[in-house]
Amino acid sequence: MIRPLAVEPLTRAAFAAYGDLIEADSARDRYMVNAGTATRFDDLAHIDTASHGGHPLLSIFRAAPRALPFDVVMLESHPLGSQAFVPLDPALAFVVVVAADPDAAPRAFLARHGQGVNYHRGTWHHPLIALERGGDFLVVDRGGEGHNCDEVTLDTTWRVGHARV
Amino acid sequence: MIRPLAVEPLTRAAFAAYGDLIEADSARDRYMVNAGTATRFDDLAHIDTASHGGHPLLSIFRAAPRALPFDVVMLESHPLGSQAFVPLDPALAFVVVVAADPDAAPRAFLARHGQGVNYHRGTWHHPLIALERGGDFLVVDRGGEGHNCDEVTLDTTWRVGHARV
Repeated sequence: MIRPLAVEPLTRAAFAAYGDLIEADSARDRYMVNAGTATRFDDLAHIDTASHGGHPLLSIFRAAPRALPFDVVMLESHPLGSQAFVPLDPALAFVVVVAADPDAAPRAFLARHGQGVNYHRGTWHHPLIALERGGDFLVVDRGGEGHNCDEVTLDTTWRVGHARV
Repeated sequence: MIRPLAVEPLTRAAFAAYGDLIEADSARDRYMVNAGTATRFDDLAHIDTASHGGHPLLSIFRAAPRALPFDVVMLESHPLGSQAFVPLDPALAFVVVVAADPDAAPRAFLARHGQGVNYHRGTWHHPLIALERGGDFLVVDRGGEGHNCDEVTLDTTWRVGHARV
């Protein structure tokens, strides 16, 4: 069965059940640093990587572009740690697909203008769906021992439509 | 006393004594993820934030541009944690000034084409010196209790010259 999945704007409130929106302009905690030459938008994501002896890993993902419409047929989840993605170019837009659980209807959000996300530990999500030319993302997730990736194939194919990027 | 400080290219080897170069192209550990649609350049920085009950913080710094020549008259160090800076736009170049200790001659490196750095815990460095129009940096450093910033005024003024950006 194929069902359509509408793409929503990515906002802090809409995404709160799944993770953190990483974005300066909408951040609440901000203060001047470096003798007034920089503003610190502070603590934008809950980096949750310490369980079972884990530690934070900082990496770069270079993502190939995916075309819309895009069929979501699987989801994954990292039971032991959060995972943050921040585009390293403000022109790099991507679609974020998340679900409360693999049987629930997923939601799709369009991340653009440099918006990043941090999936909370255990959030079901689709791997990167980079648009246009694709590109590089800074990733902060968990390193260490333990089983930290579950994957499910969905009964329903969710077709993510064209998005105005 | 004013002394000139030449700007060097930023390479992994030259910077190794002070911290990590965060850059995909020169990274050693890389492998395909997400069913072959992305390359993971893995574990690019030693995120060292756990001492004294600390934890990683993910933030954005919005840095005003600084003009060259730029006079370095102080350095700071974070004795309890590492601190990573990654520009969120590949066009955002910055000068990285580090020193083995506050009495040693500092070194200046030009970070460009998206290069980021991670200062190791305790590395003496100058706050962000963003060039051109300035811009946003993703920062991963340490949150938690404890005294985590030392600052020194230098006896010598180090004048960082014009750099070809």
